[in-house]
Amino acid sequence: MPMKTPDEYLERLKQMKPNIYIGGERVGRDDPRLRPGINVICKTFEQAQNPKYDGLMTATSHLTGEKINRFTHVNQSPEDLLKKQQMIRIYCRMTGGCIQRCMGCDAINALSVVTYELDQEYGTDYYDRFLKFLRYFQENDLVAACAQTDVKGNRVLRPHQQADPDLYVRIVEKRSDGIVVKGAKNHITVAAYADELIVVPTRAMTEKDADWAVSFAIPADTEGVKLITRATSPRPRKKFKAPYCEYGIGDSFVIFDDVFVPWDRVFMCGEWRYAGRLAALFALYHRHSYCGCKPAFTDVLLGAAVLVSDYNGILDRPHVRRRLVDMACTAELVYAAGVASAMYSEKAGSGTCIPNMVYANIGRRHAGLHIYEEYDIVAELAGGLPATLPFEEEFINPETAKYLEKYIMRRADVPAENVHRCFRLISDMICSAYAGVFQVAGVHGGGSPIMEEIAVSQSYDFEEKKKIAEYLAGTRKEFPG
Amino acid sequence: MPMKTPDEYLERLKQMKPNIYIGGERVGRDDPRLRPGINVICKTFEQAQNPKYDGLMTATSHLTGEKINRFTHVNQSPEDLLKKQQMIRIYCRMTGGCIQRCMGCDAINALSVVTYELDQEYGTDYYDRFLKFLRYFQENDLVAACAQTDVKGNRVLRPHQQADPDLYVRIVEKRSDGIVVKGAKNHITVAAYADELIVVPTRAMTEKDADWAVSFAIPADTEGVKLITRATSPRPRKKFKAPYCEYGIGDSFVIFDDVFVPWDRVFMCGEWRYAGRLAALFALYHRHSYCGCKPAFTDVLLGAAVLVSDYNGILDRPHVRRRLVDMACTAELVYAAGVASAMYSEKAGSGTCIPNMVYANIGRRHAGLHIYEEYDIVAELAGGLPATLPFEEEFINPETAKYLEKYIMRRADVPAENVHRCFRLISDMICSAYAGVFQVAGVHGGGSPIMEEIAVSQSYDFEEKKKIAEYLAGTRKEFPG
Amino acid sequence: MPMKTPDEYLERLKQMKPNIYIGGERVGRDDPRLRPGINVICKTFEQAQNPKYDGLMTATSHLTGEKINRFTHVNQSPEDLLKKQQMIRIYCRMTGGCIQRCMGCDAINALSVVTYELDQEYGTDYYDRFLKFLRYFQENDLVAACAQTDVKGNRVLRPHQQADPDLYVRIVEKRSDGIVVKGAKNHITVAAYADELIVVPTRAMTEKDADWAVSFAIPADTEGVKLITRATSPRPRKKFKAPYCEYGIGDSFVIFDDVFVPWDRVFMCGEWRYAGRLAALFALYHRHSYCGCKPAFTDVLLGAAVLVSDYNGILDRPHVRRRLVDMACTAELVYAAGVASAMYSEKAGSGTCIPNMVYANIGRRHAGLHIYEEYDIVAELAGGLPATLPFEEEFINPETAKYLEKYIMRRADVPAENVHRCFRLISDMICSAYAGVFQVAGVHGGGSPIMEEIAVSQSYDFEEKKKIAEYLAGTRKEFPG
Amino acid sequence: MPMKTPDEYLERLKQMKPNIYIGGERVGRDDPRLRPGINVICKTFEQAQNPKYDGLMTATSHLTGEKINRFTHVNQSPEDLLKKQQMIRIYCRMTGGCIQRCMGCDAINALSVVTYELDQEYGTDYYDRFLKFLRYFQENDLVAACAQTDVKGNRVLRPHQQADPDLYVRIVEKRSDGIVVKGAKNHITVAAYADELIVVPTRAMTEKDADWAVSFAIPADTEGVKLITRATSPRPRKKFKAPYCEYGIGDSFVIFDDVFVPWDRVFMCGEWRYAGRLAALFALYHRHSYCGCKPAFTDVLLGAAVLVSDYNGILDRPHVRRRLVDMACTAELVYAAGVASAMYSEKAGSGTCIPNMVYANIGRRHAGLHIYEEYDIVAELAGGLPATLPFEEEFINPETAKYLEKYIMRRADVPAENVHRCFRLISDMICSAYAGVFQVAGVHGGGSPIMEEIAVSQSYDFEEKKKIAEYLAGTRKEFPG
Repeated sequence: MPMKTPDEYLERLKQMKPNIYIGGERVGRDDPRLRPGINVICKTFEQAQNPKYDGLMTATSHLTGEKINRFTHVNQSPEDLLKKQQMIRIYCRMTGGCIQRCMGCDAINALSVVTYELDQEYGTDYYDRFLKFLRYFQENDLVAACAQTDVKGNRVLRPHQQADPDLYVRIVEKRSDGIVVKGAKNHITVAAYADELIVVPTRAMTEKDADWAVSFAIPADTEGVKLITRATSPRPRKKFKAPYCEYGIGDSFVIFDDVFVPWDRVFMCGEWRYAGRLAALFALYHRHSYCGCKPAFTDVLLGAAVLVSDYNGILDRPHVRRRLVDMACTAELVYAAGVASAMYSEKAGSGTCIPNMVYANIGRRHAGLHIYEEYDIVAELAGGLPATLPFEEEFINPETAKYLEKYIMRRADVPAENVHRCFRLISDMICSAYAGVFQVAGVHGGGSPIMEEIAVSQSYDFEEKKKIAEYLAGTRKEFPG
Repeated sequence: MPMKTPDEYLERLKQMKPNIYIGGERVGRDDPRLRPGINVICKTFEQAQNPKYDGLMTATSHLTGEKINRFTHVNQSPEDLLKKQQMIRIYCRMTGGCIQRCMGCDAINALSVVTYELDQEYGTDYYDRFLKFLRYFQENDLVAACAQTDVKGNRVLRPHQQADPDLYVRIVEKRSDGIVVKGAKNHITVAAYADELIVVPTRAMTEKDADWAVSFAIPADTEGVKLITRATSPRPRKKFKAPYCEYGIGDSFVIFDDVFVPWDRVFMCGEWRYAGRLAALFALYHRHSYCGCKPAFTDVLLGAAVLVSDYNGILDRPHVRRRLVDMACTAELVYAAGVASAMYSEKAGSGTCIPNMVYANIGRRHAGLHIYEEYDIVAELAGGLPATLPFEEEFINPETAKYLEKYIMRRADVPAENVHRCFRLISDMICSAYAGVFQVAGVHGGGSPIMEEIAVSQSYDFEEKKKIAEYLAGTRKEFPG
Repeated sequence: MPMKTPDEYLERLKQMKPNIYIGGERVGRDDPRLRPGINVICKTFEQAQNPKYDGLMTATSHLTGEKINRFTHVNQSPEDLLKKQQMIRIYCRMTGGCIQRCMGCDAINALSVVTYELDQEYGTDYYDRFLKFLRYFQENDLVAACAQTDVKGNRVLRPHQQADPDLYVRIVEKRSDGIVVKGAKNHITVAAYADELIVVPTRAMTEKDADWAVSFAIPADTEGVKLITRATSPRPRKKFKAPYCEYGIGDSFVIFDDVFVPWDRVFMCGEWRYAGRLAALFALYHRHSYCGCKPAFTDVLLGAAVLVSDYNGILDRPHVRRRLVDMACTAELVYAAGVASAMYSEKAGSGTCIPNMVYANIGRRHAGLHIYEEYDIVAELAGGLPATLPFEEEFINPETAKYLEKYIMRRADVPAENVHRCFRLISDMICSAYAGVFQVAGVHGGGSPIMEEIAVSQSYDFEEKKKIAEYLAGTRKEFPG
Repeated sequence: MPMKTPDEYLERLKQMKPNIYIGGERVGRDDPRLRPGINVICKTFEQAQNPKYDGLMTATSHLTGEKINRFTHVNQSPEDLLKKQQMIRIYCRMTGGCIQRCMGCDAINALSVVTYELDQEYGTDYYDRFLKFLRYFQENDLVAACAQTDVKGNRVLRPHQQADPDLYVRIVEKRSDGIVVKGAKNHITVAAYADELIVVPTRAMTEKDADWAVSFAIPADTEGVKLITRATSPRPRKKFKAPYCEYGIGDSFVIFDDVFVPWDRVFMCGEWRYAGRLAALFALYHRHSYCGCKPAFTDVLLGAAVLVSDYNGILDRPHVRRRLVDMACTAELVYAAGVASAMYSEKAGSGTCIPNMVYANIGRRHAGLHIYEEYDIVAELAGGLPATLPFEEEFINPETAKYLEKYIMRRADVPAENVHRCFRLISDMICSAYAGVFQVAGVHGGGSPIMEEIAVSQSYDFEEKKKIAEYLAGTRKEFPG
């Protein structure tokens, strides 16, 4: 039975070797600082069992016909892509943040396309290896991080030009039983509580970069792997507990210190011509996922903005409505771009459905360009209190609580505790390290707007538009279209 | 045979009584100032015969099963809506401007829904009347203007509160054979060369406004109708002729000076509760149409921007690419919103497919908010020459042409004439009365951004978002969704 | 000798009664959580002694002719205002954040104008009281908080309409020796380490609000005053210490629980007609101060952006230059508005120089509208590492430090420690609670953009512009100007 | 007596040889198509005689001590710069558009600096020549165009690299009595009705471009000069005449077909090292002038927006106020930048006052970035009628005028004619070729935003900001400032 429970997932984590480094020490997956992130992943096991979400949080494996967690599914149709987008939006609303598990899902989708294409081109057997891995992945309902972003050293040099060759992950040895890799990937979300690490290239490569054109999957506690982790979550609560504070995120510097990967886990090994293709495809799937999660982030911020405006008694003011509509439009334009990307998706040779490039990129870009504006709107509508709200302890200490409960009142019909909780939520959302992480992630996660601009610049049919102008100017006879 | 030719359309116009006022005189539809607008409409007859566009520019009537011009079709499915959007984009690319004929199409779609609902509510027979009209409309491949916007007088007063009761079109008499109406509608595109005028209310009404709750269709040369018209088109060319300059637009102040409408052409008569519904539905269909035409306007401006950047030799400069991508993103986000609006459309009681309210509105709004920015980008990339380009005559006069041909050169491999034509196109596009009309139309046509904000504000589920925030803050038990 | 040292200031703080509440306990001014904020204020004592800044950080008292700290000075000329602006910009660059002491300075300037005007209108002796206080203030080189913002309860009700009359600070008793006040002010920066609290109204009042029209100054540890404080500063460093982390800010909920104020410290007592004037004047001086501090905030963010772009090797890329110029323009437009506000200042009856209303407000507004954009730019140029940078401990632990020092390298000529310090600075600047506080303060501190819009809306000469249009349209004979 | 009357100016124009080409023919300065532009220049003679503007529209010559028209003055102090800025703002409000005469004024200011510096560097006598010219210029109250922008051919090549060497104006012969020049300058405002053409380089040059490093002044009807002119003005009125329609602008392609320039009119001849300096200084003075004219353009658009909002009865609506404030802020930030540029100006060797580089550029840039937005706001507030307003003839023809006067009514207390005139003004302002020209001029006139970005990028002290960051990060000991 391929669908697992949160407890089964937790049990697996407990079995793993401690290779997490955090706060100056080496710890296991049971370190409490990782718990908020783990809680997020547990949600994806829990809700897949919820009958209400059957067929949405779950899918039918095209390999086995069994019901599987949708996060382990390879998209077979536009409808699959639409459902993935919708599933992610709901999960992110539930946890108030990044659902994280899409990383692995987007990685297997990209690999399902490229391993097939590699075999077509080079007569290799990557696709078989991949399918074997996928079957294992689905049957055990695994969680994977996708380790893509290399540390990159000098940004204007290619991998083989760097002063230190390890600044991009590379193959240091090819053996009969597998390969040995070295280097580091950073910003790797979920790595500290994933079962598997799936490694893919971060960019297009030239022939001289062949040793850096490598892709594979390994257990996250493999010998030689070290996860130097920064865990972030809202300030923990003592008394006024709330779901928002139960969740968090962990990002790792993943060190590969001469790590051995057996051949059946290697999915690209020197085929530099396809490095860019794999990098771009993972990015494409991930940007389509962003067309689901980013609207949810907006939903959550927007919900807080609606709530505080309501408590402040200004919900019907035109300038407030205008700003709420601004947020709604941002969310739904991004979502609509995802829908169009799914509708105009195409079938790869392997049968996998590939989202439309232009629409997924403009959706992700639109989100990335507006993330700070969204915080600005919440700040504007909430007023200054999220920044100056006394600490939770002052609301517990009776000597001060009596004053705060009296003076925090807004509309007379809203209890002080609700006002307090509303502002504490917003304070956590916009005036915390967690907020800063989501702001930066909103810009860079899945590729910054400038990356999407490059993608659009390369894939959009500007030539057709030029021909329209030539036709209208009278320098081209035929209307092009 | 329901599909007509451009000539048949022109012949019909010739038969109409001269009730157009332009330049201080009363003229017929053969006045040359109307010709650029008429050329646009001819295109819709011509291309419907083009086998390449069969099934796109044409549709199958759900009344008769015959092939009809898609502009006379009532949408039966999401696919119909998608095709309408796509058809409009192509037509607007062909003519470099507004295709205009969607007005009537959007009006019949809205009427198909509301006349049915009126009958359900009041036991009237509006829907039968409408179907009879629709059959006639399709069989004769007619062109209709939709006359919606009343002149409105004092903007803060309702129809019945105005100093002059005629400031909104109203029923002045009900007779056994029909009604008599009075008032004026303005900004009515295509009226001066349409077969029919379809009149719908411009806003929601109260009970006291019942006499202003009226909808009907009449031939555009009906006794008492006067069309005071402003026609706009690019400067006509003497030698350097180009498709862009063949087309134009005509907008009319439509005066109803005690106009008689027979009962079988009356589709609403005092049912004030449905005035807002009809107004909003026409706006909705029209905003969905904008999700097709506005991307085409961007295509045309973008094409010109690509062309001039290419001639200037700066097409590959990062800041140029960035601006071109900005335009592409505007076009495709609007288009994607239209796609999502079609995908999430709903069936009305009459079987007509109604686009999703939120997505059509955010699409139209996004276009409206960016229209001036698009001209800004074209101006930025083209440089100052569109504003200072010598008149066409100077390029004909040999005494000056020799200098201009020498000094207008850019890249040595682009002939002077091409450069000249490119800049003349852009000068017509951004430094002409025609440009100003399209800028203002880009803001207000089909409803200004502020109207879409109101529509989104009323239809978006802000309450659900608030509940998400309450859940995350710990003041609501259940997750809402 | 009126200029004091940092130690003298610290000694004064030590003498004060413990009425600070923080983290669930009552503490004195020596609580370490207050220290980062206190360090900021110490800077203003230290640098006033720096010969390099003589005449800039100091001024000549118009009361005594003695050299005083400029923060205790009442502006007598446009040059004074220009110097205040410049002084603030330098201080904020030094501490990387809010200099805080302008609060009291802006309050005494506003009081110097309004107490004089009150006497002219009502024959009172407020101005004499004020001058006596001012002399004491200058002679002792005091630090004052300005407590303006009431907690305000229901935002759509006036003070006398609130369910609880204490939701605005009010006079509960007038006695022969003074008055008794009750209520609370929130968001009060510097209150927890100021000598004095200067209280001014938060808005215009009506006759029924006369009991709420009150202004006074009292020592911050007066009986009945409770300072419920939130202190914020960057994460403290263990090894990689840096000036940026030495400074912080403290904001207090200031509770007035039946606090007695002797008459010679009362500056307004029921004169409701002048409540709005005093509120607006404090805001005006404070917004002029923002035209000095906000450019410094930009300087600091911009400096970080330049530094990280340099380390990343992309400082000369056009898209990077563009963004850096965007930041420079924001800083300098705000500063220029302050300069124009000083140049077009006017003399009040008391001789105090009042900055121009329009320019101070548009300067502050421009800053407020762009604050989140500035963080966006820093995030864009820094990449994702500020969000995912491992904790400082991992850079200390030798087991992980060796990897991080290897893999954090950028340009080969920049040592790992510099790269690390650069990213840790930016992480503190944009991914911390401290960052969130400055973002919100950037929107709301000194009045949100919407407050400045109201101020501009009321003070700008729109009527003159309308007359210009009427003249050009031909409906007005004379050119207005 | 150095100040002339409009009639004396007109008389001078009449004496000039006909070398204007327009509409396919060669014409004299009395051609009616030039009259709207000439009317603008007449204004500058007329108002200099207006006692109300004495000392503002006039100045005292530093050469002769006589009262002169300020447009012929070389700035000697910050106050001069402030007055120039203010003068330009008033003139542009009077004419509703570009005052044009600043061109020559900015050119003589730049030449006064550079001719002096050339002499210092090379021991030449350019400054004497210049002073002789300046004396003649002031004594005769002359009008000059500044011909700077070369046609430039391929934008990525330098002058000497072009396929045709004439694509930048160049010296083709040096003779004992003077030089012969060839080439063309385009976008040259005022050339068709100026007394003199002052030619300056358009860019920095290399040694190989020495023949293109040339500056001189010649009468505009000199043998070999041909002015191919595009004249633009609002649509002329038949009945509803209005000041706005009396003015216009003329831009010329200026052809130099082997034109002889006597030595005493040559101000640079091969000194390529100073070509960039002269180009940049003219641009700097001109950008400072833009800090005066651009706010006036906003004043005019804003006035129209206020007027139409008032007629529409929505002047007090929050969303309307917001937009009006947006425009006011744009105008005043630009003006404030000009004020700061004047305040922080510096004395050149010649004694001329040079505006601050950074502030003049950020002011001009801010204007250029917002020009289209301003039209957007006017369009938003005016509604669609500017685009669909029937022609003037329909308001004259009694058959249609009766309807239009009835139906154009807004607030009952505003006469129909006023409403009509208001919308006709706005239609001319935003829906005409004249509008398009001002939009493009708003982007490119005096240098596009991208040119100002380059100027700021080169002149702003980014290094100082970087040092602040290094200090705060702990990698630099001393605070830099």
